[in-house]
Amino acid sequence: MSARTVLWAHAVVLGLSLNPILTRVAQADEGMWLVNDFPSERVAQKYGFKPDSAWLDKVRLSSARLAQGCSASFVSQHGLVMTNHHCAHRCIEQLSSKGQDFIANGFAAATEAAEKRCPALEVNQLVAITDVTEPMRSALANKSGNEFSSAKKAQEAKLEKACATSAELRCDVVELYNGGRYHLYQYKRYQDVRLVFAPELAAAFFGGDPDNFNFPRYDLDVAFLRIYSDGKPAKVDNYFPFSEHGAAENELTFVSGHPGHTSREFTVAQLLFERRVRLPRRLAALSELRGQLTEFEHRGAEQKRYSHSVLFGVENSLKALTGRQAALLDPALIEAKRADERTLRARMTADKRPGFAGAFATVDRALKTYADIFDGLEVLERGLETNGDLLGIASRLLRAADELPKPNEARLREYTDSALPQLQQALFSPAPIHADFEILRLTFGLTKLRELLGADDPRVRLLLGKKSPETLATELVRGTGLADVALRKKLFEGGKAAVDASHDPLIAFVRLVDPEARALRKRYEDEVDAVLSKAHEAIATLRFESHGTDVYPDATFTLRLSYGAVRGWVDRGKPVPPFTTFAGAFERATGEDPFALPKRWLAAKPKLKLDTELNFVTTNDIIGGNSGSPVINKNAEIVGLIFDGNISSLGGEYGFDERVNRAVAVHSSGLLEALSNIYDAKRIADELRASRPSAGGASSAASK
Amino acid sequence: MSARTVLWAHAVVLGLSLNPILTRVAQADEGMWLVNDFPSERVAQKYGFKPDSAWLDKVRLSSARLAQGCSASFVSQHGLVMTNHHCAHRCIEQLSSKGQDFIANGFAAATEAAEKRCPALEVNQLVAITDVTEPMRSALANKSGNEFSSAKKAQEAKLEKACATSAELRCDVVELYNGGRYHLYQYKRYQDVRLVFAPELAAAFFGGDPDNFNFPRYDLDVAFLRIYSDGKPAKVDNYFPFSEHGAAENELTFVSGHPGHTSREFTVAQLLFERRVRLPRRLAALSELRGQLTEFEHRGAEQKRYSHSVLFGVENSLKALTGRQAALLDPALIEAKRADERTLRARMTADKRPGFAGAFATVDRALKTYADIFDGLEVLERGLETNGDLLGIASRLLRAADELPKPNEARLREYTDSALPQLQQALFSPAPIHADFEILRLTFGLTKLRELLGADDPRVRLLLGKKSPETLATELVRGTGLADVALRKKLFEGGKAAVDASHDPLIAFVRLVDPEARALRKRYEDEVDAVLSKAHEAIATLRFESHGTDVYPDATFTLRLSYGAVRGWVDRGKPVPPFTTFAGAFERATGEDPFALPKRWLAAKPKLKLDTELNFVTTNDIIGGNSGSPVINKNAEIVGLIFDGNISSLGGEYGFDERVNRAVAVHSSGLLEALSNIYDAKRIADELRASRPSAGGASSAASK
Repeated sequence: MSARTVLWAHAVVLGLSLNPILTRVAQADEGMWLVNDFPSERVAQKYGFKPDSAWLDKVRLSSARLAQGCSASFVSQHGLVMTNHHCAHRCIEQLSSKGQDFIANGFAAATEAAEKRCPALEVNQLVAITDVTEPMRSALANKSGNEFSSAKKAQEAKLEKACATSAELRCDVVELYNGGRYHLYQYKRYQDVRLVFAPELAAAFFGGDPDNFNFPRYDLDVAFLRIYSDGKPAKVDNYFPFSEHGAAENELTFVSGHPGHTSREFTVAQLLFERRVRLPRRLAALSELRGQLTEFEHRGAEQKRYSHSVLFGVENSLKALTGRQAALLDPALIEAKRADERTLRARMTADKRPGFAGAFATVDRALKTYADIFDGLEVLERGLETNGDLLGIASRLLRAADELPKPNEARLREYTDSALPQLQQALFSPAPIHADFEILRLTFGLTKLRELLGADDPRVRLLLGKKSPETLATELVRGTGLADVALRKKLFEGGKAAVDASHDPLIAFVRLVDPEARALRKRYEDEVDAVLSKAHEAIATLRFESHGTDVYPDATFTLRLSYGAVRGWVDRGKPVPPFTTFAGAFERATGEDPFALPKRWLAAKPKLKLDTELNFVTTNDIIGGNSGSPVINKNAEIVGLIFDGNISSLGGEYGFDERVNRAVAVHSSGLLEALSNIYDAKRIADELRASRPSAGGASSAASK
Repeated sequence: MSARTVLWAHAVVLGLSLNPILTRVAQADEGMWLVNDFPSERVAQKYGFKPDSAWLDKVRLSSARLAQGCSASFVSQHGLVMTNHHCAHRCIEQLSSKGQDFIANGFAAATEAAEKRCPALEVNQLVAITDVTEPMRSALANKSGNEFSSAKKAQEAKLEKACATSAELRCDVVELYNGGRYHLYQYKRYQDVRLVFAPELAAAFFGGDPDNFNFPRYDLDVAFLRIYSDGKPAKVDNYFPFSEHGAAENELTFVSGHPGHTSREFTVAQLLFERRVRLPRRLAALSELRGQLTEFEHRGAEQKRYSHSVLFGVENSLKALTGRQAALLDPALIEAKRADERTLRARMTADKRPGFAGAFATVDRALKTYADIFDGLEVLERGLETNGDLLGIASRLLRAADELPKPNEARLREYTDSALPQLQQALFSPAPIHADFEILRLTFGLTKLRELLGADDPRVRLLLGKKSPETLATELVRGTGLADVALRKKLFEGGKAAVDASHDPLIAFVRLVDPEARALRKRYEDEVDAVLSKAHEAIATLRFESHGTDVYPDATFTLRLSYGAVRGWVDRGKPVPPFTTFAGAFERATGEDPFALPKRWLAAKPKLKLDTELNFVTTNDIIGGNSGSPVINKNAEIVGLIFDGNISSLGGEYGFDERVNRAVAVHSSGLLEALSNIYDAKRIADELRASRPSAGGASSAASK
């Protein structure tokens, strides 16, 4: 029983549970486990299959990450990569133009030569993991506040640089268990990533936002990419072949992917901070932006095409955060966490080691500071990234000019040597930039700036002067030359001298924002993040002493393996079966967006095997970031492709309940059926089929 | 010490207070008091002035209500009515047209003949109050659930009908103290209300949404209306003359107005329901609508003009609800309420009277039902009123046809005889209706319907069929003839036969919605509202037994009198002075909306007395609905005009803290200065000055 299982058990004893996430079956399929610390014995006990280290290595090397924030997998020896349509959406959109709308019409490269390069996608393959807890700990010993965060940053940069011995390698220090352990992840990095196949948005996202996070579902949320090396498809030694029939009900499944973030180790005070500060602010901003973007689509079909992926992202976040908010507003969750923490607090208080007795009070203090600076951080520092492409470009150019001359370990994290390739890719992306959309987003950001800090705040006066947000945003967007990639390159390569000499109005604006944003970021790093890390180090140590590796760390957008099974659930007394079929999709279609199936589907209907499984659910423990993860069987064969969780999975940020949390996936049989019989994509289907063991592809023998 | 003061004191003892509203000064200026149960002795003790019954009667009769949801006052014997610009905004907008934009340019009737009739405003003057607790109680005795709510409605309708002996009278049974008492309010009703004066929106709402609920402020948020009777200005015997100099710092002030709603008597379970269910849903919907409306303004200047008052309403609600949410998310507030309730619960549990011991459990049960039906109520029943003018008209026509043939006491409340004049005014308003705006609002409502109930909900399938929200909304709005007032009259007058025979698509749509909406409303009335009333009757009884009339009832959009004083406060260590001046407005203006002063102001600057007070704050306890309330001195002279509360007043929904809660008002001197020296409104200024006692107007002698 993990620490968390203990926690949920409390809730049951206390009779608090109205919330399903609080009643747990024993030995649930919970956990986003480290691939190098996987509970194989536990899986063997429950499912009769024990993954060995060869199997785990194979799975790790066949898995992939999109550095921009999704999961993926290698599915042929020729570098074919499978992920979700929604993970590749931005690329598909960027490759589209007025005449060629691949979002609306889909894309299928008939030949290798027709595969199109994505302007800004990076694929990572995790090639090595090294435990660096000792070097990190010794660098941090007896440090706190600013000294702690500087030392941490420096040591991370040092370790990463030593590890990233070529531009093809990317290295990240990963903080696990809130500083309980540090690992160094070495990735092989692929930046030449090409689009091979994507269905129409209407098929990939059938049901749209209304169905998002729901099940039954009927989505073909897939895209195939290919990694290239020296202009040729990269050869990969490890990949997942497609299973012949997919997985049956109750069959053991694994999901190998990159859950982005969870907060299951949060203290009660941190959960209350989420509930009181972070979620309300984010939800209000996202809801409002959703409204603006929805109405922006009325400006025209072009506007709709190039803004849609941003709207999708906003709606997706909104639904996810709404689910989290619901979990946190249920008093039962907080009460259960409180009950669990009571025991821990008592033991911490009695502990004589330095920093232990005061750890919880330290957390409270850090959160008080965080609350004070939260709004400023949102609208200044975070706003530089969220309020349009141009603003992001301007701030990266300015900061790169300041940061790159510094020693590697003294730079802001996203400007260290190991981060440079991703930075340059974002800076020099040839993706088109649309002025009216940029104006909307920058106006939104400036309006929030004034709203959250107040019209009389000196920073607001400094940035807006006598202008309204819209006037200023319009001037900056119309006045800047940064839509031109050549200018960006010139400024980047010209370094600080070139950037300092620039009269570009957006650079000038960012020059005003930057000191304020940096000041807040520094306060956050020194007075919040470093303080929380320090306190959590103590809390995590004590937790370890009780539970050992019987617990998994919170998600960190690094590779995790979860186990589970294909299984429906019971929703308000009604059983929800685990599979849907093509027939169901046709029954549900209304002909109106987002319930309109593409013409290709309607035309293909007569020749389709309508009882082929299209989507299915499993008990695997996943969360945002897992999108695009392969679902595999014990033979490490693809049986599905994760693209969502059900609505009950949203509280998964804070806990897992096997009774109702479900991962939602596209079925492998449905994928092949669609490629072969709906789309003109026989080339891809053949490549997938050729990868099968029976067809001569490689597979790994599974130990038991 | 009131019950509530006891509650806050708990918080202090428990050391919980971070939230300012939880630490109270003794004998605070708290309370929205009934005019017929005013704590004159308490005022005398603190401020040395004891209002007597003649004074109170005079104040009551000089006060007015806009039935659509604001406060007002009579300010001359010729029926001149003063309220806020934002209370008359909709009328000003409706009287505007493409060529004549009174929102942008203001309006000043040079002669009586130039005063323009508002399409849908009703002014009420409270002429009599009767205690009807006994007849209500005896009608309700030993009833519960549906029987209770039917009996209540029937008895209310009966009492109201007997009271409203002519079309000029409007009678409402008012439930006070959650059913602890019932009063029958008799109003004189004025439906011929004309616009006399309004400044430019830029002056009325200087600072716009960013400044809303903030102080210092510089808003001329005033409009003058005039009530007419038989085509002539109505003569009124009671009105407030303007004070010579306004009120000085620390001077006693009264606010006589109509606070709309407070929840200070809520149980903890009800507060948690607000926090968990109602506020998150409303905030998400309002934020999104705000985004849509903001972007809708980009469709054109005309669209901006006719949608702006809806955006204003949305932003105003949003800010108010955000403030409430912040109060409820502060754990200290809930803890304090919980501590208070503990004592009460213990006493309730021990009480042998029927319904007393189980009262709190009854509340919990009712809230569980409420949670189950909440989304349906929002999108179906409430949606009929909030998703555009046309939908509201269609549903009123349909329901009127069904309700009016029933006996008065069996009808839905808004269709009883005493409600008919307001219903007809809304139905037959000649205000223009704009199809594109209607489509936006109806699309929004239908989208929420599908989002909150789910695409597979049978009601969603019934209403949307195979159409998307936008397609259906467009068809309904383009297809309906209800923009035509003559058709509405025909259908209304034709009654059920005419409405049943109508093939108008919007009527047909509402025909589908109505049974579902009624079913939910009935469940709400029988299983939530009636059950809560019953439980609160017991709770209120026990509270009364402890505190007597030492407490005031929650706000009910009926006349209340609050007392206080002109006084600044300390905001994060910095004193905020109570007055602002015209000079301040000019200093703060940037020339950009919403910080652009109108041209008239800039032109008038040289001749203005710049040190004239423009806005000020008082400690009066007010809330939404109080907008437009007169601020008067002990001589019952106008010293100001309430138009807002400061940001700390938003938690006033749940409690009051004299240290930081402030009412925000336009200063009487500023009003006169603006009318005389900025606007061409000498006629109005003269009328106001002529009302002064020194000028021969009537005033009341104040007792001490």
